[in-house]
Amino acid sequence: MAIVAVGSLAYDSIRTPSGSKERILGGSLTHFSNAAAFLSKPRLVGVVGDDFGEPEWDFIRRKSSAIDGVSILKGEKSFFWKGYYTKDFDSAITEVTELNAFAKFKPVVPESYRNDDYLLFLANIDPKIQLDVAKQCKNSKLIILDTMNYWIKSTPDALREAMKNVDGVIINEGEAELLSGGEKNMIKAAEALFLPNFKILILKRGSHGVMIFGRDFLVTLPAFPVKDVIDPTGAGDSFAGAFVSYIDSNNLYDFDRDGIKRAAAYATIVASYSVQGFGVDGIDVISPMDIDHRLKEFQSIASF
Amino acid sequence: MAIVAVGSLAYDSIRTPSGSKERILGGSLTHFSNAAAFLSKPRLVGVVGDDFGEPEWDFIRRKSSAIDGVSILKGEKSFFWKGYYTKDFDSAITEVTELNAFAKFKPVVPESYRNDDYLLFLANIDPKIQLDVAKQCKNSKLIILDTMNYWIKSTPDALREAMKNVDGVIINEGEAELLSGGEKNMIKAAEALFLPNFKILILKRGSHGVMIFGRDFLVTLPAFPVKDVIDPTGAGDSFAGAFVSYIDSNNLYDFDRDGIKRAAAYATIVASYSVQGFGVDGIDVISPMDIDHRLKEFQSIASF
Repeated sequence: MAIVAVGSLAYDSIRTPSGSKERILGGSLTHFSNAAAFLSKPRLVGVVGDDFGEPEWDFIRRKSSAIDGVSILKGEKSFFWKGYYTKDFDSAITEVTELNAFAKFKPVVPESYRNDDYLLFLANIDPKIQLDVAKQCKNSKLIILDTMNYWIKSTPDALREAMKNVDGVIINEGEAELLSGGEKNMIKAAEALFLPNFKILILKRGSHGVMIFGRDFLVTLPAFPVKDVIDPTGAGDSFAGAFVSYIDSNNLYDFDRDGIKRAAAYATIVASYSVQGFGVDGIDVISPMDIDHRLKEFQSIASF
Repeated sequence: MAIVAVGSLAYDSIRTPSGSKERILGGSLTHFSNAAAFLSKPRLVGVVGDDFGEPEWDFIRRKSSAIDGVSILKGEKSFFWKGYYTKDFDSAITEVTELNAFAKFKPVVPESYRNDDYLLFLANIDPKIQLDVAKQCKNSKLIILDTMNYWIKSTPDALREAMKNVDGVIINEGEAELLSGGEKNMIKAAEALFLPNFKILILKRGSHGVMIFGRDFLVTLPAFPVKDVIDPTGAGDSFAGAFVSYIDSNNLYDFDRDGIKRAAAYATIVASYSVQGFGVDGIDVISPMDIDHRLKEFQSIASF
């Protein structure tokens, strides 16, 4: 099978308690692909401006199996985000958001992407666009949608509509609370959010791990403890990329619990590397052997 | 071996989003014993007033192997706490605290308690008293101390001194953050708090599970997800009681990681029952078979 992924390609200027970086490669699609590439390089759908540099093109080429769906808007700049993390990485404060080319993003999924069996991943973008892409990909085997607080607050109806047209969502604890109308008990929140069309709901809990709800099962894992966090940007997208690539490459489309547990453990480990470097670096420098090694360590500290 | 436990015996009036109860049996020693009694009934050291009723005496007799160390202060009432939990059980708000007999608590550990090999558990009380009891029990095999925000803020020096005289502590995430001077990364907080005399540090994370730090290992487990929480009072004491009783009854005093993982999983399950009823009821109504059943369920959702 294959993965088709739609999301943002961006430049990020990031300040964290561990340092700062100017205009490094970021964006949900970038982080997703970076993590997925070990097992299943995705086919990308995105948009950049004509400022998107050769090293950045090289990077996304290396982490994907097709970039025909990435368009360049002439005379526009690429999406730019500038922000910082407060002490102890409590929260991300946005200083600048320039949508630039992304404001005109009208994704078209290339015909060539849709020839084989494929899984569609809708990274965190405007739910209206997510719905439009979902409709372009009616022949996909599975659609997973990511979202964030911004869309839950500003376009809840469009988000609900998009959710009705996918097989599963991946959100974090705070988003689940917000989207369920203030439910803090995550089992109740998940029950409230689990639509009849869903096969899976992935609830990311940051340094507290992950809970995954299926139609007839539940999985809960702690995070892999990381002492020296450098930059948490993209950790959630990395989790999603690793998780989806594991599902795809191990053909776990029937979502059996043991397979989902293994996928969650694998994604936990890949995401744990993502916070250990700025931008894409934490994951880009590691090998499958590193992942395997830490996965064994994870088993020894968390599997009983 | 045996467990000697020092702590409070109290009446609690509790209001939670699930209901309310007036003057039910509570206190750290009560909840600790309630959870420990399945595997290793502790020898109790505590104090009550002459209002302590026959049903309450029956209860603590049933959950302990000795109550010689529980004294009755004539003309005094038992410790009383009244409070409520906010929506979603976010935090406990104290409305009334009457120390009563507890204000004059000068625990004396009976000679008979100290004849065999034993583990001493110092439930959450004034650290000066904890230190005094630790000194009475110099021949104990192991001393574990519990504490809370109140002592960390009001008597930090006494707490530090008590911590220097024990083999391990059990605290929650918020307390660890406070005690470490604001460290939110729990690995760093644990490193800062782990004294040279420690063999173990147990970090409770509520609905997010538990991390356990040994001299050369780490264990991390998620919580067992509970949908319908009735009353979280005593969940931490219950975790401690179940954990310590597992250590004691399985002779895990050498703290090997696999044994600690099993102890943590067992305590996670017992604590998950504690929140499903008011006061001691959640645990009092279950059998070892219930624990075993849920432990298997826990394994299937969280062990990979």
